[in-house]
Amino acid sequence: MAGLIVQKYGGTSVAQPERICSVADRIAARYHAGHRLAVVVSAMGHTTDELIELAQKVSKEPPRREMDMLLTAGERISMALLSMALSDRGVPARSFTGSQSGIITDGAHRRARIRRILGDRVREALGRNQVAIVAGFQGVSEDKEITTLGRGGSDTTAVALAAALQADACEIYTDVNGVFSADPRFVAAARQWRTLPHDLMVELATRGAGVLHPRSVELARQYRVPLWVINSLRQAEGTEIVVRGMEEYGVVGVTSDSAKAWLEVKLSRPTALSALWDAAAKGQLAVVSPQFLDGRVSFFVEQDCAGEWKSQLQKLASDGFISSFELRTDWVPVSVVGDRFSQDGAALQAVLEALMSAGVEATAGNASSLAITIAVPAAKASDAVKHLHHVFLEGN
Amino acid sequence: MAGLIVQKYGGTSVAQPERICSVADRIAARYHAGHRLAVVVSAMGHTTDELIELAQKVSKEPPRREMDMLLTAGERISMALLSMALSDRGVPARSFTGSQSGIITDGAHRRARIRRILGDRVREALGRNQVAIVAGFQGVSEDKEITTLGRGGSDTTAVALAAALQADACEIYTDVNGVFSADPRFVAAARQWRTLPHDLMVELATRGAGVLHPRSVELARQYRVPLWVINSLRQAEGTEIVVRGMEEYGVVGVTSDSAKAWLEVKLSRPTALSALWDAAAKGQLAVVSPQFLDGRVSFFVEQDCAGEWKSQLQKLASDGFISSFELRTDWVPVSVVGDRFSQDGAALQAVLEALMSAGVEATAGNASSLAITIAVPAAKASDAVKHLHHVFLEGN
Repeated sequence: MAGLIVQKYGGTSVAQPERICSVADRIAARYHAGHRLAVVVSAMGHTTDELIELAQKVSKEPPRREMDMLLTAGERISMALLSMALSDRGVPARSFTGSQSGIITDGAHRRARIRRILGDRVREALGRNQVAIVAGFQGVSEDKEITTLGRGGSDTTAVALAAALQADACEIYTDVNGVFSADPRFVAAARQWRTLPHDLMVELATRGAGVLHPRSVELARQYRVPLWVINSLRQAEGTEIVVRGMEEYGVVGVTSDSAKAWLEVKLSRPTALSALWDAAAKGQLAVVSPQFLDGRVSFFVEQDCAGEWKSQLQKLASDGFISSFELRTDWVPVSVVGDRFSQDGAALQAVLEALMSAGVEATAGNASSLAITIAVPAAKASDAVKHLHHVFLEGN
Repeated sequence: MAGLIVQKYGGTSVAQPERICSVADRIAARYHAGHRLAVVVSAMGHTTDELIELAQKVSKEPPRREMDMLLTAGERISMALLSMALSDRGVPARSFTGSQSGIITDGAHRRARIRRILGDRVREALGRNQVAIVAGFQGVSEDKEITTLGRGGSDTTAVALAAALQADACEIYTDVNGVFSADPRFVAAARQWRTLPHDLMVELATRGAGVLHPRSVELARQYRVPLWVINSLRQAEGTEIVVRGMEEYGVVGVTSDSAKAWLEVKLSRPTALSALWDAAAKGQLAVVSPQFLDGRVSFFVEQDCAGEWKSQLQKLASDGFISSFELRTDWVPVSVVGDRFSQDGAALQAVLEALMSAGVEATAGNASSLAITIAVPAAKASDAVKHLHHVFLEGN
């Protein structure tokens, strides 16, 4: 079936000139099979890290605007090279920056959010039977400032572009075969899924599955974009993320997320909770799996944002909203994701019991309709995942 | 005198993070002394060469449009880093791409010409007391394609920007102290000029002086932009290029140009000459110091363009315009530049005699009011320059 496909190739897939050439081979084959293609690319391999290192050599605290100016050089290089490699294969291609593609974002440098995609020049290129190469991760604000989207930005660009172009599919190329029931590097019995519904993929991604960025999957769910996860380095079947139908899946995965930490806050007065959420929203600080009991609220936060959380919480404490807080960077979330959990405490209890039998201490945990998440010691996370996978996914 | 200064730093001046920091120190000092500053930067050191190498690894013949997309990543990196380094020194700075600066060019990728400079965002930054960092070498065409200006592009950006902003001065920072009467690496007696008029600097630049690109000096002459050549790596006085007054300078320099080759064409019919110039203009092929005698025309061309010349000339030959041509890449021009040459053949003869006495064969040569240029064997060019410098610039 020939159609309009948006593909996305991450940094690993374009890390060296030879890999760019094999990506070009893959695209050329699809092009010659009659597909129209818009291809989103990330910066080559470690380019972004190298640019950040350069910035640190000239400045103690680089302004975010200039970091965006700097980092967007990365995709500019990879997209021009990919376009050249295609042209060398007789495939007409045009590369476009985020700005040229009309990827309009808000003005939050280094973590901008896409507001809309104009895509005129991309459509025009497709109309001329050219492959459109689009810079991932970058956009332009209403007042014409260059922005970047933050982590997972290129996935998000690809899905948003697929939605804007009403593409038939969005293919995310990466260095793994697809979506697994646990990280196959640590759990030998992990199995790959052929299809998964958007909602369960959102849960897996949010809880540390790593293969896709949560924002991109949320966007795909919202616009009902059919999403594929495919290995760019070898031939393999991949995983298709589909619009949910009538079927149920049961437990689909066990994850842990070492990029998260656990935070517990003691509130001093009734308005404290909304002051806390306000501070989080203002600082764009993620709050994951919050739970509340007896004037204490606890949830997971990004390890990266630990410093920002501390200063926000100290301010709340000095303003009298909270009496104390405990930020535990040595506790991480472990989650069981699925769609057939009972609506009472039984599912939560089953997970807690399984952890206890494996000798893993569990401090806090909660259940939503699609996931159960427990804080466990970081040192025990891998044991916990293995054991939970065994209990919930193997043998029956 | 505090005023509006446009500065330009070349690739050597920003080759490493430490050099970017010392450029930032220099700018900060001028800023704190009360100057308004727009700073044009090239790509860091060998970045452009490295990007070209990458392109060659993925494509045998990279499309020019995509080369421009690729190469413009270079200035994006250096300008963002310089802006960060300034901000670290408490100097507010904003970097702008060629497109953001409104540097509007024609659509000729890799050798675009600036049509006009809008400069709104640069003016706005200056108005806010910010240092505006502008990407050299790049612009945007009327149909929003990213372009580059070709060799010497950053010098040209700086001068054009100085003209558009009506700057008080344009300072070109480079790795030499200023403009010399000959290349001081080869001629020990070469002396540095404190001031030179635009017209003589155009001649020196056109004939291989290397320190400034001819296009930038022509532009400076046209818009009467006062131009400085200053060493960015050490403290030294520099050379000021000034609007010509009443004074005369005599002989100011001896140059050779190894990037040029000599071409002689035998014409078959009266319309051949205009067909030849048409072909050159269409291919944007430079013609330097042409001379005509008995149905033969000869001139210097860029070594780089030798292949393109050959194919153009073969076409002219097969169309019956020319009977034969000889492209001598082993002959280069040596020039004596000055403003007090006699209007007859005496000056040409003086140069030819000086070469003869030094044992340097001279095939062809001609004189304009500001320069005498002779074709000599490339292997003898350095001897010729030394001897001509001795005769015309030393001792009297």
